[in-house]
Amino acid sequence: MLTKEDNETLTRVGPGTLMGNLLRRYWLPALLSTEVPAPDSPPVRVRLLGEDLVAFRDTNGSVGLFVQSCPHRGASLFFGRNEECGLRCVYHGWKYDVTGQCVDMPSEPAESNFKSKVRVGAYPAHESGGIIWTYMGPPETMQGFRDFGSESLPPGQWRASKVISYCNWIQGLEGNIDTTHISFLHGPARKPSFPDGDDTDKPGYPSLRMRGYIHRTDGAPTLEVHDTWYGFRYAGIRRTPAGLLNVRVSDFIMPLFTYVPQPYLPVGGDSCIMMVPIDDDTYWRWSIDMKPGVREAQLPRFGHDMPTIGPRTAATPTSTPPGLQQRTQFAENDYLIDREAQRTRSFTGIEGIPQQDLAVTESMGHIYDRTREHLGTSDRAVIRLRRMLIEAARSLAQGVEPPALDPALPYAKIRSAERNIAPSDDWRLLGTDADPLVIDLLPALAAP
Amino acid sequence: MLTKEDNETLTRVGPGTLMGNLLRRYWLPALLSTEVPAPDSPPVRVRLLGEDLVAFRDTNGSVGLFVQSCPHRGASLFFGRNEECGLRCVYHGWKYDVTGQCVDMPSEPAESNFKSKVRVGAYPAHESGGIIWTYMGPPETMQGFRDFGSESLPPGQWRASKVISYCNWIQGLEGNIDTTHISFLHGPARKPSFPDGDDTDKPGYPSLRMRGYIHRTDGAPTLEVHDTWYGFRYAGIRRTPAGLLNVRVSDFIMPLFTYVPQPYLPVGGDSCIMMVPIDDDTYWRWSIDMKPGVREAQLPRFGHDMPTIGPRTAATPTSTPPGLQQRTQFAENDYLIDREAQRTRSFTGIEGIPQQDLAVTESMGHIYDRTREHLGTSDRAVIRLRRMLIEAARSLAQGVEPPALDPALPYAKIRSAERNIAPSDDWRLLGTDADPLVIDLLPALAAP
Amino acid sequence: MLTKEDNETLTRVGPGTLMGNLLRRYWLPALLSTEVPAPDSPPVRVRLLGEDLVAFRDTNGSVGLFVQSCPHRGASLFFGRNEECGLRCVYHGWKYDVTGQCVDMPSEPAESNFKSKVRVGAYPAHESGGIIWTYMGPPETMQGFRDFGSESLPPGQWRASKVISYCNWIQGLEGNIDTTHISFLHGPARKPSFPDGDDTDKPGYPSLRMRGYIHRTDGAPTLEVHDTWYGFRYAGIRRTPAGLLNVRVSDFIMPLFTYVPQPYLPVGGDSCIMMVPIDDDTYWRWSIDMKPGVREAQLPRFGHDMPTIGPRTAATPTSTPPGLQQRTQFAENDYLIDREAQRTRSFTGIEGIPQQDLAVTESMGHIYDRTREHLGTSDRAVIRLRRMLIEAARSLAQGVEPPALDPALPYAKIRSAERNIAPSDDWRLLGTDADPLVIDLLPALAAP
Repeated sequence: MLTKEDNETLTRVGPGTLMGNLLRRYWLPALLSTEVPAPDSPPVRVRLLGEDLVAFRDTNGSVGLFVQSCPHRGASLFFGRNEECGLRCVYHGWKYDVTGQCVDMPSEPAESNFKSKVRVGAYPAHESGGIIWTYMGPPETMQGFRDFGSESLPPGQWRASKVISYCNWIQGLEGNIDTTHISFLHGPARKPSFPDGDDTDKPGYPSLRMRGYIHRTDGAPTLEVHDTWYGFRYAGIRRTPAGLLNVRVSDFIMPLFTYVPQPYLPVGGDSCIMMVPIDDDTYWRWSIDMKPGVREAQLPRFGHDMPTIGPRTAATPTSTPPGLQQRTQFAENDYLIDREAQRTRSFTGIEGIPQQDLAVTESMGHIYDRTREHLGTSDRAVIRLRRMLIEAARSLAQGVEPPALDPALPYAKIRSAERNIAPSDDWRLLGTDADPLVIDLLPALAAP
Repeated sequence: MLTKEDNETLTRVGPGTLMGNLLRRYWLPALLSTEVPAPDSPPVRVRLLGEDLVAFRDTNGSVGLFVQSCPHRGASLFFGRNEECGLRCVYHGWKYDVTGQCVDMPSEPAESNFKSKVRVGAYPAHESGGIIWTYMGPPETMQGFRDFGSESLPPGQWRASKVISYCNWIQGLEGNIDTTHISFLHGPARKPSFPDGDDTDKPGYPSLRMRGYIHRTDGAPTLEVHDTWYGFRYAGIRRTPAGLLNVRVSDFIMPLFTYVPQPYLPVGGDSCIMMVPIDDDTYWRWSIDMKPGVREAQLPRFGHDMPTIGPRTAATPTSTPPGLQQRTQFAENDYLIDREAQRTRSFTGIEGIPQQDLAVTESMGHIYDRTREHLGTSDRAVIRLRRMLIEAARSLAQGVEPPALDPALPYAKIRSAERNIAPSDDWRLLGTDADPLVIDLLPALAAP
Repeated sequence: MLTKEDNETLTRVGPGTLMGNLLRRYWLPALLSTEVPAPDSPPVRVRLLGEDLVAFRDTNGSVGLFVQSCPHRGASLFFGRNEECGLRCVYHGWKYDVTGQCVDMPSEPAESNFKSKVRVGAYPAHESGGIIWTYMGPPETMQGFRDFGSESLPPGQWRASKVISYCNWIQGLEGNIDTTHISFLHGPARKPSFPDGDDTDKPGYPSLRMRGYIHRTDGAPTLEVHDTWYGFRYAGIRRTPAGLLNVRVSDFIMPLFTYVPQPYLPVGGDSCIMMVPIDDDTYWRWSIDMKPGVREAQLPRFGHDMPTIGPRTAATPTSTPPGLQQRTQFAENDYLIDREAQRTRSFTGIEGIPQQDLAVTESMGHIYDRTREHLGTSDRAVIRLRRMLIEAARSLAQGVEPPALDPALPYAKIRSAERNIAPSDDWRLLGTDADPLVIDLLPALAAP
């Protein structure tokens, strides 16, 4: 439960808000590289943290990310001509390079030096892992890009996608560090029977059937939260029939990244999900699949690489990344819930794991009122998340630098993990370099 | 004409408003019984007095009516599983019985007693006459259900339906105690000629043709308003060609019921219409046809049993009562007005009596500004309605109990009526037990 | 750049605003004559300066323009019956003549004189040039209709049309006195080559090819603004290859008219465009083609007579003027921009000159925030426009009468013009009676 004031602080991200200021200190995903596929390809609209932007790739392949409104008389630069290393407004022909500098102003006398005084608001772009990232904070506090592994991978080895979501980003983020709900929301309609003859209820990776059985039969995992230099890790600890612990370790990385374990057998694996605010009422649920080689070879059906799913409103081809699908399940059609399926097959009767998440998180309202809730022990990670974000936002306002900004820190070493362990084992080692079962796949993948 | 403050008091019904507090002291129609047709059938969304609710019928057939938001973390219970005497949230599996008590909390340790401390907001439900009624006021002031006759009738003898209406409920209510407009809004394009050879211009029930002639030729009835223990009755008194009085007596029953006479010849009859606020801008126009036996045997074409007409937005089958039709006439398509028909056939050129009502009441705006109007003598009942509601709402805030709450009062005796009488007769007797022409149909209908 | 306060003063037009008061002192276009084509034809909805109105043509052919809400109980008079010299509300049959006086009140006793005390708000109508004009200011300050030439022309010699526009009217108005943007927004993708063999780079009217070449190669015309009794004229002055001046003279006439030169060779010509606020967020872009005889005989392809383009929402036939088209290009579909066409054919890749204007002006937002812009020398006319309007609005509030209200002034003499002149010539004479090349077409057209 939060006070009304805490809830406002937690959720609002527009320019000048406490949380907006915090988020603007980190590099965030802005758009897919494929949305501006080639030099001089059409500009596209981007909305991020409540700001309307336009992105384009210039003749040299550099990406520009501008405030959408032309600084002359406010026409949208989305309609601009992307030509010869700059974006030119169609109203009076003013042209800006990727840094935002006006480089041509043909509607003013040639001898005028007015163009040197005009800039369009521009944010820096860094392309990595199929994503164009940006930094929207003050230039003087900008730090280097945090490498989560994509910098050393060949193109195409990461898979990035995003799904449009119609509620506040915190609702999505809370849902993604909420390990308990997988026993319910994403489960079958009825508890499965014990997988007879399955001998994987022992230390190590349980089979998929055993894993499903454990998740669905112990719905009340003990949650343990452990602060780290990048945020926190937490474990959802379930008892197995044989008396072992099934431990599911997830990570929260400031300010909006989560790592969720995936059953890429026999080595484990994880996916990174980022809840990036479009504005206070909408966010992109970014998904990165970081172990494609493993996934494809070993367990294709568990891949979390989602299609990119955009709004259901019509859009012209120019603003449509390749492979984009329109959302078909949303509040207005009850996410196409099938009540018969809910009775007999799945817990929700709603098709698709992200869609199940969206049904519950969007149904809380655009900005959920946290003054009315009743939190239990299974909400420990959610509680820690809120405190960590609110404290970092308020501390920043007091002049305290946010955590996990230094690009030299080992972001690429962060891994979530899920395994059965003996009760005496320490789950905090899972997924770390001290974990003997961890295979660091990045160097292998990066090799030719 | 009202002051701005009176207009606000009269129209606003959300939690904590003066009028909202008044309405919450009465049992109100919440949904059709057929919307939750069977034990464990899918839950449905209900919005009432600005509150978002969910209704379901449990395994025993009892109806639960909950605040839609789960008290845990706010997911909508509309997506819930209706199973084994309770509604279970799909997010973390918390389950509530029809009283709102949490009876299962599988995401918390079994030994935890947290569930005993958690309740979802729940309103009591009473099923009668094909309607699920609820009481949304303070539990300590709840009184018994007011029986308007449905309690003693076999199932199916009442017919209830509702039509979605896009404006404030008071506009609908005013329209329904406005006997004058039937001479215009619902009439033919031209005044009819006298029904030659018709001998029913005498005391008693005029023929339908005679009734239509009288209504359309005397558009300026004298209105007389008479306060009663349940609200007020009023008469629209028209002169007939033979010098008699055609009297149309309607009833207003606190806080939002009206009884309107229907020409169920030869005995007369009435229908009950209730304007139930969904919120300040929308209401359900509930219609109850209380004399189906009479109506069908004697004059089928005058039945007011409407189909249920819901919003025109798509909805899944799970939230659709049987027989629901989507509204096809609304402001955006000018109610499909046919100007040629308006010139030659009907006064409006709009098809359907409720649709004619909606065209004028919705066209006043979402909440009509009553500071600008010009009321005449034909608006006496409208004026009385407003005063009665505003005074009851303000009195309640002063601690004065509202009228017509005691369930022991004879609600089932209230009847509207319409007849020709001699100028010396007292219209106040019409429809009462002292009226020799009244046949009390309820006992007869209730007989096997 | 404007202060926030100036921007509010400039843009807001509702009842009681400074600019709203100023606009209400002038006769403004309200609807097309063809929208109420015949006596007793159906009434139509009109929204003007934020007020909801209804227009109808009575039995005598006079036009009434009423506040839409019936003064009795607020039903919309749009649904009214247009019959026997008045509009009758369908709710209770109250009837009003074109002056707004209630002339029949059949729901009140015949002996009552209440009808004489009731009026519906009504604005005077003046029909001229295919347009129904109205005056919405105080009756005591109403002056005669300003004749721009239509009064002396036979019916059909003017052509009026209008296009619905989804942004504040000032954005449209600024765009229409912005001669510079024709070098860009409406131009080809690439600069054209010099029209070899063309000898029209001399004083007089350049050929169309020469004109296009000059416009597109000199994008930085010198702007000179010259105040007049009706507002101002301004010239966009471009250098021609031969060292002459290509001068494009446009007029702004208080409070929202513009005259734009058209290349009706060999005599020149112009069109009148008026940006008439529906409310703060929407306007009709009215277009009048005043020289149809010239245009058709000589250069049909340059006619600016637009179809009338209304909202894309469905409307019944009763509110649809003949020839109305629905808008198909709008913000939500990116005005159907064709990026390949933008690369190879036109500067924008958007089809249609008004649509190009709408793309940039609507993209500034509903009400553009002028505190952030960067104006250059090419914005001199825009700057003058704003100052003139703001000053007139503030002066009116101080009791100073607005300019150009006297109907005796020679409005029909105002003409825009475009020609090549010698550097020593005075452009201020172009289009005036002192201009030897001006042919006054109105008398000729008016002749049988």
